[in-house]
Amino acid sequence: MVSNYWDESAELDKLAELSIKTGVALQSGQDLLITAPLEAAPLVRRLAFHAYKQGCGIVTPLYTDPEVTLLRYQNAHKESFDKATDWLFEAMGAAFDKNTARLAIVGEDPMLLSEQNADDVGRANQAVSKASSPVRERITRFDVNWNIIAWPGMQWAKRVFPNLQDDAAQRQLAEAIFKASRLDGDDPLANWERHNANLRARTDWLNGKNFSALHFYGEGTDLFVGLADGHEWMGGASKSRNGVTCNPNIPSEEVFTTPHALKVNGHVRSTKPLSHQGTLIEDIVVVFENGKITEAKASKGEEVFLKLIDTDEGARRLGEVALVPHSSPISQSNLLFYNTLFDENAACHIALGQCYSKCFKNGDTLSKDQIIKNGGNSSMIHVDWMIGSETINIDGIDFDGTAIPVFRAGEWAS
Amino acid sequence: MVSNYWDESAELDKLAELSIKTGVALQSGQDLLITAPLEAAPLVRRLAFHAYKQGCGIVTPLYTDPEVTLLRYQNAHKESFDKATDWLFEAMGAAFDKNTARLAIVGEDPMLLSEQNADDVGRANQAVSKASSPVRERITRFDVNWNIIAWPGMQWAKRVFPNLQDDAAQRQLAEAIFKASRLDGDDPLANWERHNANLRARTDWLNGKNFSALHFYGEGTDLFVGLADGHEWMGGASKSRNGVTCNPNIPSEEVFTTPHALKVNGHVRSTKPLSHQGTLIEDIVVVFENGKITEAKASKGEEVFLKLIDTDEGARRLGEVALVPHSSPISQSNLLFYNTLFDENAACHIALGQCYSKCFKNGDTLSKDQIIKNGGNSSMIHVDWMIGSETINIDGIDFDGTAIPVFRAGEWAS
Repeated sequence: MVSNYWDESAELDKLAELSIKTGVALQSGQDLLITAPLEAAPLVRRLAFHAYKQGCGIVTPLYTDPEVTLLRYQNAHKESFDKATDWLFEAMGAAFDKNTARLAIVGEDPMLLSEQNADDVGRANQAVSKASSPVRERITRFDVNWNIIAWPGMQWAKRVFPNLQDDAAQRQLAEAIFKASRLDGDDPLANWERHNANLRARTDWLNGKNFSALHFYGEGTDLFVGLADGHEWMGGASKSRNGVTCNPNIPSEEVFTTPHALKVNGHVRSTKPLSHQGTLIEDIVVVFENGKITEAKASKGEEVFLKLIDTDEGARRLGEVALVPHSSPISQSNLLFYNTLFDENAACHIALGQCYSKCFKNGDTLSKDQIIKNGGNSSMIHVDWMIGSETINIDGIDFDGTAIPVFRAGEWAS
Repeated sequence: MVSNYWDESAELDKLAELSIKTGVALQSGQDLLITAPLEAAPLVRRLAFHAYKQGCGIVTPLYTDPEVTLLRYQNAHKESFDKATDWLFEAMGAAFDKNTARLAIVGEDPMLLSEQNADDVGRANQAVSKASSPVRERITRFDVNWNIIAWPGMQWAKRVFPNLQDDAAQRQLAEAIFKASRLDGDDPLANWERHNANLRARTDWLNGKNFSALHFYGEGTDLFVGLADGHEWMGGASKSRNGVTCNPNIPSEEVFTTPHALKVNGHVRSTKPLSHQGTLIEDIVVVFENGKITEAKASKGEEVFLKLIDTDEGARRLGEVALVPHSSPISQSNLLFYNTLFDENAACHIALGQCYSKCFKNGDTLSKDQIIKNGGNSSMIHVDWMIGSETINIDGIDFDGTAIPVFRAGEWAS
């Protein structure tokens, strides 16, 4: 029985404990909201166990059912695709306002919607983008401690390991998730303390340098990414506005900050496929002028990508830039996970759309207007895609114009 | 594979179609909220299929996970049990205010919490009662079309058929559910048209008589149930305030109305066990004086029952009285389902707590104050329990005091 297998998995239990204690860093008395695909129930139950042991008030799992999503695309009338469950997103926002911590489990088939009508998918995605703003705003503002982890979903596993049988593929993906999540050895919590210290050394150096821009160059890319005024580099553990230091992403290998929404110029090519809400988008090539995408194409999924950057005014501008060495364990696994949580940790990347206000010095004291004045971008979307590889160099540009090596051939220069 | 078995069950598909078309009577363009235990996913998917075919806007399943509920009782700190997910109930209320239809699937183990600490269970139930008022108010006021159906949950099946193996028990319970839901033959929708016409004949007769009280008497029971001023008998199909005629319960064999909260006198004994939020309560004996329970005992689950009637002021008074002949198919199945949706259709019953405003003449024009003035009860709870059997007689008492036979030895007198 698959279900018994997972109920007895010591690794799955370690992931759950790490998520509750280090990831979401759940406080005694705090409530917890978990979103998860239906098949992740064995992980949700381990999380609930550790959450209650930790003094959790109440654990509320909200399960999503990909089969029901598919049935919609296959059977609904066209009017359906402009609808979203706004009342549920508003409720989640209300929960966060009551200091409920958030835990999201990814694990669905990244290609779930690849056979469905692109117009329907685009309209539905846009409706969800609009309706979900109460959640997105609170998470990007970092109101509460949160964490995302992964469940080895069966359909996902079969995408990553197409040549393996069902159970074998799922167990292989589980191994990859556990490894990437640094569960190795007896004490994953200690692993993460060390890892967080390493990331902090990098952000301290970058914050000390206070570059005005980063220059990415190499095969297919020559891009100047101006950084926002008063930007701050972050990575690994960070403190949410409710005062809790959590690790939002497990795994996480990146350090990241806020670009200047008006000061990005040049061209850039994606180095890994972007799996966006069910569609795989490959070989993206875009041109930026004064922060805005003025040309865009892709060899696959171009229609979905063009719809994406037309979501709103800010969808054509950057909200995040992140640095990840090519030697990161996820990159070295040589796996394409088709999932941002993993693939973004295999390479340097940028994100279109909403910026994180926490990536500013004293970010939680800044008004929305001040953030925009400093160069922070605003949008309903936040979509990461990979632009780093072993051929890409990065220079940090000083305020006096001096170029200082940051990355050479995909690795930290020092 | 169990999951394939259900995906291919023609009966399950018939239940889903009946639920969408006759039960909830989903309107084109209307949204649908489905609450269901995790294991009912195969039924939820058939419902989503028929809902989208019917022009549904968006189907939102909210799955509950009984394992997570259990983990709470086994591991949470004591403070947890005063908490409930209020933001989620408020969201469901908001959804109904936007004309979202409601579909609830029952199917969980009726004894899920029977081994847990009664004080914890009582506190948690009370917290849920309070938090869920936005949902309960809208459903008892009948704001939107709704429907409850059943899924043959595995643990539930093993309670009903303790001597059968897992799969056999589940299939046996499925058969019982399908039969009770009147799925027999090729056209369940036509079955329900006939059934609704029969129930309407009974309510027309009772409404014509306009009794001031019902007198229940027989083995262990001698109870006068005064009826509310302007009470109306209902049963089967009925019209919600959004104008949709739906069948709230599938199955349903009862006709029911509102007792007068101040005019119930005598003693009554339960004739079937009451399965209340995980505890089985047996052999309830209560005394009513001027509408209020003044003495109460039970041979099993007494502690939970006493807590229940102490929930609030209205929890010791009646909100519903319902008539079901002993010859009803569910009674004749001789099964104890441990679930109100079924067991209430095997016998005459009363409900403690909140009354239905729809069970008044022009009920949707009455204010809360008018309903109370007419004798309608108000409470956070609404809990049905069985008082009918083949030994019980019922007289209707005219306004001039004449007794007219309504039931004799558990059957309609005419």
